[in-house]
Amino acid sequence: MLRSRGLTALARRAHATAAAAGASVKPGAASVAAKYYPHEPKGPHIVTETIPGPRSVQLNKHLGEVFDNRAAYFVTDYRNSVGNYISDADGNQLLDVYCQISSIPLGYNNPALLEAASSPEMASALVNRPALACFPQDDYAKILEEGILAAAPPGMSKVWTALSGSCANETAYKAAFMYQAAKARGKMDFTDEELQSVMLNKTPGASDRTILSFEKGFHGRLFGSLSTTRSKALHKMDIPAFDWPVAPFPELKYPLKDHIRENAAEEERCLARFEEIIESHPPGKIAAIIVEPVQSEGGDNHASAEYFQDLRRITRKHDILMIVDEVQTGVGASGKFWAHEHWNLQDPPDMVTFSKKFQAAGFYFSDPELQPSQPYRQFNTWCGDPSKAIIARAIYQEVTKNNLVERTAATGGYLYKELEVIAGKYPHKMQNLRGENFGTFIAWDCESPTHRNELLLKMRGAGVNIGGCGERSVRLRPSLVFEPTHANVLLNALEHVMKQ
Amino acid sequence: MLRSRGLTALARRAHATAAAAGASVKPGAASVAAKYYPHEPKGPHIVTETIPGPRSVQLNKHLGEVFDNRAAYFVTDYRNSVGNYISDADGNQLLDVYCQISSIPLGYNNPALLEAASSPEMASALVNRPALACFPQDDYAKILEEGILAAAPPGMSKVWTALSGSCANETAYKAAFMYQAAKARGKMDFTDEELQSVMLNKTPGASDRTILSFEKGFHGRLFGSLSTTRSKALHKMDIPAFDWPVAPFPELKYPLKDHIRENAAEEERCLARFEEIIESHPPGKIAAIIVEPVQSEGGDNHASAEYFQDLRRITRKHDILMIVDEVQTGVGASGKFWAHEHWNLQDPPDMVTFSKKFQAAGFYFSDPELQPSQPYRQFNTWCGDPSKAIIARAIYQEVTKNNLVERTAATGGYLYKELEVIAGKYPHKMQNLRGENFGTFIAWDCESPTHRNELLLKMRGAGVNIGGCGERSVRLRPSLVFEPTHANVLLNALEHVMKQ
Repeated sequence: MLRSRGLTALARRAHATAAAAGASVKPGAASVAAKYYPHEPKGPHIVTETIPGPRSVQLNKHLGEVFDNRAAYFVTDYRNSVGNYISDADGNQLLDVYCQISSIPLGYNNPALLEAASSPEMASALVNRPALACFPQDDYAKILEEGILAAAPPGMSKVWTALSGSCANETAYKAAFMYQAAKARGKMDFTDEELQSVMLNKTPGASDRTILSFEKGFHGRLFGSLSTTRSKALHKMDIPAFDWPVAPFPELKYPLKDHIRENAAEEERCLARFEEIIESHPPGKIAAIIVEPVQSEGGDNHASAEYFQDLRRITRKHDILMIVDEVQTGVGASGKFWAHEHWNLQDPPDMVTFSKKFQAAGFYFSDPELQPSQPYRQFNTWCGDPSKAIIARAIYQEVTKNNLVERTAATGGYLYKELEVIAGKYPHKMQNLRGENFGTFIAWDCESPTHRNELLLKMRGAGVNIGGCGERSVRLRPSLVFEPTHANVLLNALEHVMKQ
Repeated sequence: MLRSRGLTALARRAHATAAAAGASVKPGAASVAAKYYPHEPKGPHIVTETIPGPRSVQLNKHLGEVFDNRAAYFVTDYRNSVGNYISDADGNQLLDVYCQISSIPLGYNNPALLEAASSPEMASALVNRPALACFPQDDYAKILEEGILAAAPPGMSKVWTALSGSCANETAYKAAFMYQAAKARGKMDFTDEELQSVMLNKTPGASDRTILSFEKGFHGRLFGSLSTTRSKALHKMDIPAFDWPVAPFPELKYPLKDHIRENAAEEERCLARFEEIIESHPPGKIAAIIVEPVQSEGGDNHASAEYFQDLRRITRKHDILMIVDEVQTGVGASGKFWAHEHWNLQDPPDMVTFSKKFQAAGFYFSDPELQPSQPYRQFNTWCGDPSKAIIARAIYQEVTKNNLVERTAATGGYLYKELEVIAGKYPHKMQNLRGENFGTFIAWDCESPTHRNELLLKMRGAGVNIGGCGERSVRLRPSLVFEPTHANVLLNALEHVMKQ
């Protein structure tokens, strides 16, 4: 569908690809995508004049009568989607570097995942869905240990499972609130005043403690998580919210190497303000902070490892829990299994939440005091879903077996360098390229929201499904089987669109 | 395992069972349980002295090192559970009338559900999990229309899917808040003041509207849903809550026929107080009420159809939305597909939420104004889960094909009458029997919380897994393939335990 091609760039890229692939591949190992997907398309295949095409439009109209789908890009044919390529209802096949808002870990119709999904164990998990905390299945410990817990971040040994990123964060908040209340209460029982007031949603039974979040952070859409979400007004408008505090998150300037002193000062400013906010509250009032390793919905905002080390130091100093939200950053895309491993913390976070690419959701922790004093407090009917834990295990095992985290780091390294070249050619169209040495977790800014939205649309026309974030950013969120050859398809399409 | 048996009762019951079965079964049709489960046990099989048995205890200890399972009754072997019988890790087989807190619709290892769960369609749904509002699958409308929407309550034509009962309720609350704000705002855009204040969690952008719930109601455990949950202090303690209003729910006396005037007065009192609370708020301040057809976690509290008709009338009068929480009462157990069909409302509720037995979750509605003004407002990454919608469709189709709602009504009628006989013999041990003409959604009170907990334990020893609710209630929550012969197993075990 690309009508013109940058042949010099293509030739150079073919060479660079081979080098990048060589760097990331162990002797004897070949493309993992080719192993999984012998019939993966070699490139996009576009058959309609516009995307969405006529059949997508028609199907979406029908669906829209019963379900709110006004955000739809196109209607998808998942049966014919394969590997890094997503098919729409009109037969268009697009390279997918958005992957269901960063939630497809190993490509479409991954054979290893299909095997797990087709197993009798899965069928049983689906039809005999347990209330896990009351009637746990005899192999739930094993499923967790071989999957979700085997993947646990350094220093984390326990998990509470949930169903979505929002409820992973909210159950982590609940753990934080109960932890701080128990610490303040000591060994005493609940008082009569607490027992009575809580039924009226009033203190002291209901807590007036808070969760501190960061400007432009995104942690979900339910009432507690939305109160910590600070990404966009549209995400929050008209919904009641807790009056919880917010701190600034650094706004770094790019290229990083040209703004070292300025960026260090910005992080310093934000850390000082962060500690000031904490100190303006009574001790114990802020139960926890929640922070993303990269603020994703809010515009792919990064900060340095040193900044996060200081956050950890300050939270420890003031006895505030640190929750790291790895819902979008987790499971390998950053070039580490968990993005916060880039920080080299000496002292791990108190809780790390996950969802999206892991399909299962929940939070990791280590301190047994983060389990509340009695059963039935951190509780709900399902307390997770073994069918998702089985998928998470298969994902973890495939990622490990195929070194997909290391491969993603290598592919990301190659991709970043090539994007730098394009950004150099189109400095106005492609600003603030970021995500170096951060796997494929790469983003840049467009001149304006309008330009960004146009770019996303044109990229779809050029055969690449790509997503935005923040006001004017483009974010790359391919799966972990996105390799240098796929990167070239993206780069060629991007260069083609940039030229227009 | 029952060491003594009430032989006269058994003989009478054999006769009554045949009659009850005859009444509920169409000519030529036989037991649905026998059709699904030719090898379903004829009765409980208890092999350990205590439940949990030693292997359950050992496995639970292991799981407890990584997962909070202190609420566990026993560790379950789902592979060997069949139909109405649940197996534990020690090989005990118990008749299950609790069914994963009311969440197993058609028995364990149901062959029709296993077929749906083993289909290529399911495998694709699991490994290609879509962000439904952005990339809906081409057959999502069809899956909804053949399942979740085919089952829609009278007057409901649209659905918003979610992942749990809690998030079904919270998304319904969000719809209510956005609806009321849009109505107040008229055709105007958001103001600058709204856009700025909402980012600080402050009005006017953040809403100060409220959801009114009822004393002893239970609507979930996340921050918004928990603010409307009023069941027990332990459910709420130490968690921040919105300062939302609460109204009394009728406390009826039983048997109903002996307390007609008193109960009418109690409902009258609660309705008056409800309207008083509404009138004490500025118009528009209360966005919606949420109410369960039977308050389940709060103690299986019923009210009359007339009471609910009056609730509906009062909400209409004051322009307040009515959300009916059918998370526990829905999907057939009440002898209607939706319990609120018992009310014969002329004017349907504004939203009806579901989860549990349907495995999928969400809320039904009809008024297009309950979709907010713009896309991406009622939104999250997944917006539901097609794998659960496929299961819900299979459940709906089996329920319909086998007349399981009508059969449950008949079984419940039989069971209730037999329980009345036992309650007549042990009036102190079994008080306030309730749920007549309400399918198998039956409950009673014990003398005290201690007596209730003892009863549950003894019933497990006698081979029946049974659950409590409220302070001292026992609730029956069998699946829809619980038939008079299964009811007899329950009745015999109960009579045996009562005699002790």
